[in-house]
Amino acid sequence: MEIAKLGEGKTKEVYSFEDGKVLLKYKDSITAGDGAKSDILDGKGILNAQTSALFFRLLERKGIETHYIGMYDERTMIAKSLKMIPVEVVLRNIAAGSIVKRLPIKDGEVFNPPIIEFFLKDDSRHDPMLNYSHLEYFKLMSKKEAEEVEEIMIKVNAVMKETIDKAGLDLYDFKLEFGRLGDKLIIGDEISLDSMRIREKGTGRILDKDLYRKGSDMGTVKKSYTEFLTRMERVI
Amino acid sequence: MEIAKLGEGKTKEVYSFEDGKVLLKYKDSITAGDGAKSDILDGKGILNAQTSALFFRLLERKGIETHYIGMYDERTMIAKSLKMIPVEVVLRNIAAGSIVKRLPIKDGEVFNPPIIEFFLKDDSRHDPMLNYSHLEYFKLMSKKEAEEVEEIMIKVNAVMKETIDKAGLDLYDFKLEFGRLGDKLIIGDEISLDSMRIREKGTGRILDKDLYRKGSDMGTVKKSYTEFLTRMERVI
Repeated sequence: MEIAKLGEGKTKEVYSFEDGKVLLKYKDSITAGDGAKSDILDGKGILNAQTSALFFRLLERKGIETHYIGMYDERTMIAKSLKMIPVEVVLRNIAAGSIVKRLPIKDGEVFNPPIIEFFLKDDSRHDPMLNYSHLEYFKLMSKKEAEEVEEIMIKVNAVMKETIDKAGLDLYDFKLEFGRLGDKLIIGDEISLDSMRIREKGTGRILDKDLYRKGSDMGTVKKSYTEFLTRMERVI
Repeated sequence: MEIAKLGEGKTKEVYSFEDGKVLLKYKDSITAGDGAKSDILDGKGILNAQTSALFFRLLERKGIETHYIGMYDERTMIAKSLKMIPVEVVLRNIAAGSIVKRLPIKDGEVFNPPIIEFFLKDDSRHDPMLNYSHLEYFKLMSKKEAEEVEEIMIKVNAVMKETIDKAGLDLYDFKLEFGRLGDKLIIGDEISLDSMRIREKGTGRILDKDLYRKGSDMGTVKKSYTEFLTRMERVI
């Protein structure tokens, strides 16, 4: 079997694998500000691969389809080969990050129901927000598909929130990316501290990539990513 | 009858009038860049009041409800008193302005069907874009109402585009604002060269407020606003 590199993003490499499958190798790079800030954090790829696998398996058990098939090695996932849609779908339970700069919303404001947003993956334009009208114009998703994606986001949120709550943590927001397999929309990419905001209940302590965004040293970031994986392994 | 000032925006003053009615007085101010640039253009209020009245009457004749009742004087409109929603709804037939900066879209790209966008009226945040999820969170419009508004935008576009075409001009985009009267959503505000982009067919000559945005002198701007009103009076 020939394993050829198919592509590479800021934090993952994609390799061809068996028919209909790919390998996703999680790298040790950590980036922020649409790639403006970038570092190497030894072992981060393993942590994010393990964390993602944990959540993908959890979702699969709850009947939500993901690209996850299994692990190839500790930092490499065997996944269904999807035609990825270059859109980030964000669900927000509690306000943090870009939304409090963009809109008259305060840090910590609670959204019930959650707010869901679509962003075009385009670092040079700082991932601009898209509405249904744009999604259709760019032939990324039909309005009906975008509504389906929103329903999946709500289901994923219910599962993840419940589990993360049990670990004494709050799920502020998370980002998913979707891909097509035939006419199905399936969750791809990753589910890690790079793609969600997690704060400790009570203390409000940050566990996610905001640590890196806000300038914490690499040791603190790695400790936190490790702690989160451990706490999640206990409850999942 | 007592006439009291109820409010004032960048280009209009609102006064109380008879029961259920207000007076909208169009000022001579012209502004751009969320109010960053501002000037007085003698007679502009009259031109925009007359242009708006022309379009409101056209829409009413086509069965689309607006706030327009009649004229009080040459720059003052008698209008239904609506509870205005602080949202700008933009329909784009041809790309120009902010969308070509925000998204991978080129000046002059044709949208068919048109792109419709919602923006929060908030100069300090540069009118951020909203999706259905935000509109609901801010209690501005339900998703169902936003969809109704989009249908009205499409109808208005068909009427305006046909008429503007007859005058040898292209309607690139336009902005409407809506208000509530009981449980009805009705078109309010204005329909003028401040709120739409108009280019001459063939030559591409700009007739709208982009002249002012791009630094044309006041004489050129006034001549263009006058020419547009004259050309529209001939076809409406």
